[in-house]
Amino acid sequence: MPSIRASIVGASGYSGEELIRLLLRHPEVEISCITSRRHAGKPISEVFPRFADSAIRFTDSDAEAIAGVSDVAFLALPHGLAAEFAVPLLERGLKVIDISADFRLRSPQLYREFYDLDHPAPQLLDEAVYGLPERYREQIRTGRLIACPGCYPTSVLLPLLPLAERGLIVPPATVFSMSGVTGAGRKVDLPFLFPECNESVRPYNVTGHRHGPEMEQEVSLAAGADFPISFIPHLVPVSRGIHSTITVRLDEKADAEQVRQTLDTVYADAPFVRVRPAGQLADTKHVTQSNLCEIAVAANDKLDGVILSSAIDNLTKGASGQAVQCMNLMYGCSETAGLL
Amino acid sequence: MPSIRASIVGASGYSGEELIRLLLRHPEVEISCITSRRHAGKPISEVFPRFADSAIRFTDSDAEAIAGVSDVAFLALPHGLAAEFAVPLLERGLKVIDISADFRLRSPQLYREFYDLDHPAPQLLDEAVYGLPERYREQIRTGRLIACPGCYPTSVLLPLLPLAERGLIVPPATVFSMSGVTGAGRKVDLPFLFPECNESVRPYNVTGHRHGPEMEQEVSLAAGADFPISFIPHLVPVSRGIHSTITVRLDEKADAEQVRQTLDTVYADAPFVRVRPAGQLADTKHVTQSNLCEIAVAANDKLDGVILSSAIDNLTKGASGQAVQCMNLMYGCSETAGLL
Amino acid sequence: MPSIRASIVGASGYSGEELIRLLLRHPEVEISCITSRRHAGKPISEVFPRFADSAIRFTDSDAEAIAGVSDVAFLALPHGLAAEFAVPLLERGLKVIDISADFRLRSPQLYREFYDLDHPAPQLLDEAVYGLPERYREQIRTGRLIACPGCYPTSVLLPLLPLAERGLIVPPATVFSMSGVTGAGRKVDLPFLFPECNESVRPYNVTGHRHGPEMEQEVSLAAGADFPISFIPHLVPVSRGIHSTITVRLDEKADAEQVRQTLDTVYADAPFVRVRPAGQLADTKHVTQSNLCEIAVAANDKLDGVILSSAIDNLTKGASGQAVQCMNLMYGCSETAGLL
Amino acid sequence: MPSIRASIVGASGYSGEELIRLLLRHPEVEISCITSRRHAGKPISEVFPRFADSAIRFTDSDAEAIAGVSDVAFLALPHGLAAEFAVPLLERGLKVIDISADFRLRSPQLYREFYDLDHPAPQLLDEAVYGLPERYREQIRTGRLIACPGCYPTSVLLPLLPLAERGLIVPPATVFSMSGVTGAGRKVDLPFLFPECNESVRPYNVTGHRHGPEMEQEVSLAAGADFPISFIPHLVPVSRGIHSTITVRLDEKADAEQVRQTLDTVYADAPFVRVRPAGQLADTKHVTQSNLCEIAVAANDKLDGVILSSAIDNLTKGASGQAVQCMNLMYGCSETAGLL
Repeated sequence: MPSIRASIVGASGYSGEELIRLLLRHPEVEISCITSRRHAGKPISEVFPRFADSAIRFTDSDAEAIAGVSDVAFLALPHGLAAEFAVPLLERGLKVIDISADFRLRSPQLYREFYDLDHPAPQLLDEAVYGLPERYREQIRTGRLIACPGCYPTSVLLPLLPLAERGLIVPPATVFSMSGVTGAGRKVDLPFLFPECNESVRPYNVTGHRHGPEMEQEVSLAAGADFPISFIPHLVPVSRGIHSTITVRLDEKADAEQVRQTLDTVYADAPFVRVRPAGQLADTKHVTQSNLCEIAVAANDKLDGVILSSAIDNLTKGASGQAVQCMNLMYGCSETAGLL
Repeated sequence: MPSIRASIVGASGYSGEELIRLLLRHPEVEISCITSRRHAGKPISEVFPRFADSAIRFTDSDAEAIAGVSDVAFLALPHGLAAEFAVPLLERGLKVIDISADFRLRSPQLYREFYDLDHPAPQLLDEAVYGLPERYREQIRTGRLIACPGCYPTSVLLPLLPLAERGLIVPPATVFSMSGVTGAGRKVDLPFLFPECNESVRPYNVTGHRHGPEMEQEVSLAAGADFPISFIPHLVPVSRGIHSTITVRLDEKADAEQVRQTLDTVYADAPFVRVRPAGQLADTKHVTQSNLCEIAVAANDKLDGVILSSAIDNLTKGASGQAVQCMNLMYGCSETAGLL
Repeated sequence: MPSIRASIVGASGYSGEELIRLLLRHPEVEISCITSRRHAGKPISEVFPRFADSAIRFTDSDAEAIAGVSDVAFLALPHGLAAEFAVPLLERGLKVIDISADFRLRSPQLYREFYDLDHPAPQLLDEAVYGLPERYREQIRTGRLIACPGCYPTSVLLPLLPLAERGLIVPPATVFSMSGVTGAGRKVDLPFLFPECNESVRPYNVTGHRHGPEMEQEVSLAAGADFPISFIPHLVPVSRGIHSTITVRLDEKADAEQVRQTLDTVYADAPFVRVRPAGQLADTKHVTQSNLCEIAVAANDKLDGVILSSAIDNLTKGASGQAVQCMNLMYGCSETAGLL
Repeated sequence: MPSIRASIVGASGYSGEELIRLLLRHPEVEISCITSRRHAGKPISEVFPRFADSAIRFTDSDAEAIAGVSDVAFLALPHGLAAEFAVPLLERGLKVIDISADFRLRSPQLYREFYDLDHPAPQLLDEAVYGLPERYREQIRTGRLIACPGCYPTSVLLPLLPLAERGLIVPPATVFSMSGVTGAGRKVDLPFLFPECNESVRPYNVTGHRHGPEMEQEVSLAAGADFPISFIPHLVPVSRGIHSTITVRLDEKADAEQVRQTLDTVYADAPFVRVRPAGQLADTKHVTQSNLCEIAVAANDKLDGVILSSAIDNLTKGASGQAVQCMNLMYGCSETAGLL
C-alpha cells in the first residue's frame, strides 16, 4: 500500500525518465507530481512514450504546489537551482533528494571554482548528506537533504573508499572512465548526434571535469589525508553504462587478492554491490537496467598496485536508482524496494 | 603502371580484407595472388562481397607457388607460421611484410613467454625491421623482412617514442586503450557476437596482453633504459578504431605545451601523423578508413605529467595500411601511394 | 508468497536468460530448476553474470528430475525436442509452456515442410494452445500445453487478427519486419559477429522463413479463409526489438481511422497492447525491456489500404515475457504479475 | 593534372563533408572554394577534423565570388535556394550540380505541394537533367544543370527503371526503405541524438515523404504510364547506408530469374551497379564508403511478383559520389575517376 507521496521536479531528461520508471513500480510510492517548466500540461507519455499507460501530466515546477502534495521531492534539475527548490521545499517540511550537483561538494569555494557560480544555499551544505548508501547508510536514514553522487564518482568511490579507509592504497589514483551518451543528459547538441557518437570513442574534459573534486573529497575523507585523483572521462557509443578502470599503488603490506577479499567482505551485505571472483573483470552489460555496481580487482605488477574495474548503469546506480535507494532508507522501506 | 607483384597470404580475416581493399587501388601494385587454405578456389567476392567486381580467386597457401609469381608477400597469418612462409619466401628472393606477431619481439625468450611457442625462425630476428615508418623509415627502405607493429603498439609508440628518446618523460607509463571489435579478428567466438558487444564496454586481458612487451621493447630502446608500461586494453562497441589514453610523468624541465610542440615538430613531415592543436583531443572517428594517427596532448597536473590521446584505425594504420606504407618505402614509391 | 514451482529447461540462450530474469522477480514463482546439458553443474552466474546474486546452478536436462520438483516447465529448447521433454513432462502431470516452435503449426505436414523433420509428438497438436493471450486468453487459462508464438508472428498477429476477424482487411498482406540480433539466439556464427552486424542492415530468408506459415495459419483462422502473407524479415544492428511494418488493403467500407479505433477498442483492456494516437508510429525503443506491444496505424492511399506499424521486445513479448503472461493466466495470477 | 576548378557551396553537413573527401583525392579536380555562411573564415578542419591536412578555409556563400574562381559548382544547400545560387552561377557560365531537391521534380505544382514553396526558378526545370547516370548518361554529358537524385530514389530507381521500361512489372510497387542517421543531415534535433536512435528502429513520414513523388515521376516516365509507389521509410541505427526492399507484381510472362538476368545485362557495363547472384541479397555493409549500388532479386510467390533488395551508401551513391560521377561525365573524365 503506497504511503510515500513523491514528486519528481524537473523530469524532462533521462534521469527524470528513469526516476519515473522506478517510482511507477515502487510498491510504497505514490507519485504526487512530475514537473517540468517546458512540458507543463503535457501528458508524460508525450515526452516519454514508454509510459503510455500513465495518465500523469507534467505540472509547472512550483515549490509551493509541489510541497502541498508531497512528502519527498526528487530534484532532477540542472545545478544552481537549490535556492529555488531545495530551500523552500525543506522549509515546508519535505525531505529532498537532490540528483543535481548542488550539494555534492562540501566546500562552497570548490563549488564556485567548478560550477562558476556562488553556491545558491551555502547554509545547507553542513546538513546535506552525500547519498552513497554503501558509505553513509546511517546518515541517509535520518537525513533531510540528500546530495546524490555523480555517476562517475559512484563508480569510483565504491571500489576506492574501503581501500582508502583501511590504508591499503597509496595516493594518487588514476581513473579512466567510459560513459554512455545518456550521461550527457538529453541535451540537443552536435557532439551527441548519432553520427557523431557512433563509431567514435574519445576522451573529453580531461583537465577539469566537475566529478573530479567530488571523488577527491570523498576519498580524502576516507583516507584521512589528501588523495589526488587524475580523472579522465571518455565518451563511448553505448546508451547506458559507465565503466571505470582505476590504477593505484598498494601499500607494501597489501596485495591484489587481499584487496579483492576486503571489498568482498565490506560489501557482503550490500545488496547492490558485487565483487567479482578473482580473474574476472567488470562489464557494463552485466549491470545495465539495474541498480548494481560490479567491481573487479586485478594485480598491476608494473605499477606495484592494482587495477580496479567497476561498472554501473549511469542512470540507475549512477543517478535515479541510487536516489530511490536513499529514499528507501529514509522511509524505512527495504533498501531494495522497487529496485529489483 | 603497376610494377610490384604483391601476394596476400592468409587473407580471410579483416586485415586481409583491408589489404585487398588497399592494394586493389594502389597505382603501382598488381595483386599476384591471394591465398587462404580454407577458401582456396573460391572467388574473393564470396568471402568479401565488397569486392564483387574482382575476378580474383583464393589460391592455396603454398610458399613455392606464391614465390613463383610475386615480388613481395604480405603475411596476414596467425603467429607461429614464420618457418612455413617467411623463411622459404625470403629464401626465394621475395621481400616479406609480416602483419603477424612473429618478428615483433626481438627476444625469442619473450616470444616464448607471451606466445607459448618456441620461436619458429629465431635466425631471422636480427634482420627483421620493426615496421613503424615514422621510427624506422631508413631501415624499412632497405629491409627484406618487415615486422609490422601490433595495432595497440602503433597507437602508443607514435606519441611515446619521440618523448622517450628526448628524455621528456619519466617511467612508468599507464596506457588505457579502447579497441573496436575487428581488433579481435574475424574470430567466431561468443564474446564477439553482436549482442555480447553492443551496449557493453569492458577491459580484458589486463595482466598480460601480448602487445605490452612490444610497447616496452620499443619505448625502452628509445629511452635507452627500461621503461615499464602498464597496458590495459578495453573492448568497445565500434567496428574499427583504437584510442589510447596514456598518462606519464614529465621530466621536471618539460611541460605539456613543450611536449605538444615536440611532437608537432617531429611529425611535421610525417604524412600520416597529425598532432592536434592545444585544447583538442583525439577521436577515432576522425581517422577511421584512413592511415592516419591523430595525437593530442593535455596537461595532467594531478600526476605532474601529461595525458597523451591518440587514435588510429586498427585495420589501416594499425595493420594493413601501415604494411602498405612500408611497402611504399621498400619500393621507392611515394610514402602515401594508395593510401590517400 | 511463492507457490508456483517453475523450471526452465534449456536455459543457455537469450530467451532463457530473459526467463530467468523475469521469474526471479515474479512474486508467486519459485524457480525449481534451470537446466542445460552443456552447462550442467555451473552456477548460472557463470553463464549470465547479471545473476551474480543467485546461487542457482544449472542441472542436467532430465525430464524425470524436472518433473519431480516442478509444477510447470518452460521449454527454452531448440525445436524438435518435444518427444523428449513435452511428452514426458505432461505425462507426469506438469503444465508445459513451450517457447520452441514445436507446437505452433497445427499441421504436421507444414511442420515437416518448414522444419525438415517429422513432428516429434503429433498426438499433442490438437491439445496445444497457441500462447497469444490477447487472442486465446480463455483457452490458455485451462491449457496444459502452451505453444508460445514466434517473435515475428507476435508483432504481426496483434495488429492483424482483430482486423481479419472483422473483415476489415483484404488479403494478401505484406510484412516487412526488422529484428534485433538476439532474435538469432546466442548462436556463435559468423553473420552474427559484431563487425558483421554493426553498420549493416539486410534482409534474409525472404522466401521461406519459418514464421511465415505461422502468421498465415492464425490470420487465416481469424479471417475464416486463406490469407496469404508475404513475410520479409531483416536483420538490424540492435540487440533487442522487432518492428513490423504491414501493408494491407482495406475493405471498401473501412478506413484507417476506423482501423485504429477498432484496435483501440479491442485492446482497451489488454494490459500489454498500446494503440498509438493517430499520427504516431511505433518505435522499438518505447517497448524494449518490457512486455508491451505498441501498434500504430496510418493510411496508405497508394494501395487503398493501411500501414500497420508494431513494435515489441523480441525476448519479452516476443518470447519469455509472453510465456510468463501465459503462466499467469494458467495459475490465476494477475496477468501482469512479474511483468511490470 | 587537375583541370576542373570545382566549388562546394554550403558544405557544412555530411554530404558536404563527403564531397570534400571525394574531391580532395580526385585526380582532375582542384577545389576552388568551399563555402558556408555559418563557418566562413574557419579552416575546414575545424568543422571536419578528418581534413586536418588541408589548409582550405570556408568562404562566404556568394555567387559572384564562387563564379569568379570555378568551372563547376556543387550545391550542397537546403532546397529553395536555387534562385540565389543556381540561377546566377549558370548565368555566369558555370555548370551546376545540385545535390538539393530543387530540380528533381519536373512539375512546379508537385514541388509546391511537397516543399511548401513556389519553385524558385521554374524557368530552369526544362533544362535540368536528373542526375542518375545509369539512366541519363548522355543527357548528363551535355547538361549544364544537374539535379542529383535523392538518396532513397537512387536506391529504388536503379532496380525499378529497367523493369518498368521493359514492361516486366505491374504497378503499384511497395517500397520499404531503411536509412542510416546521416540521411537526416547534420541536424541538431532531439530525434537524432544518439540515445534516441541507438537500439531504436522506426518508420517515419510514411504518408508523405518528399522522395515518394520523385520515385513515381521517374518510374512512370520509364513505364510510359502512371506507376504509383507506396514508399515507407524507416530510421535505423547505422551512420551510413540505405537499404530498400521493393515488392512488385510481375507481368505474367516474367519470372524472378528473368528479372535478375535483365538487370544483370542492363548493368553489365555500369561501373557502380552490381547485381548479386541468385540466392544472395543486398547488405549495406557491402557498399558503405563506396559509390556502389548492390541489387538482388528474389521470387515473391505470395504476391506473384519479386522482391528487389538494393543497398547504397546514402552519402556516396545517394548524394556526393553520384554528383562526382555526374561531373566526370560532364567533363569527359573516366566515369570512375576519384571514386574507386
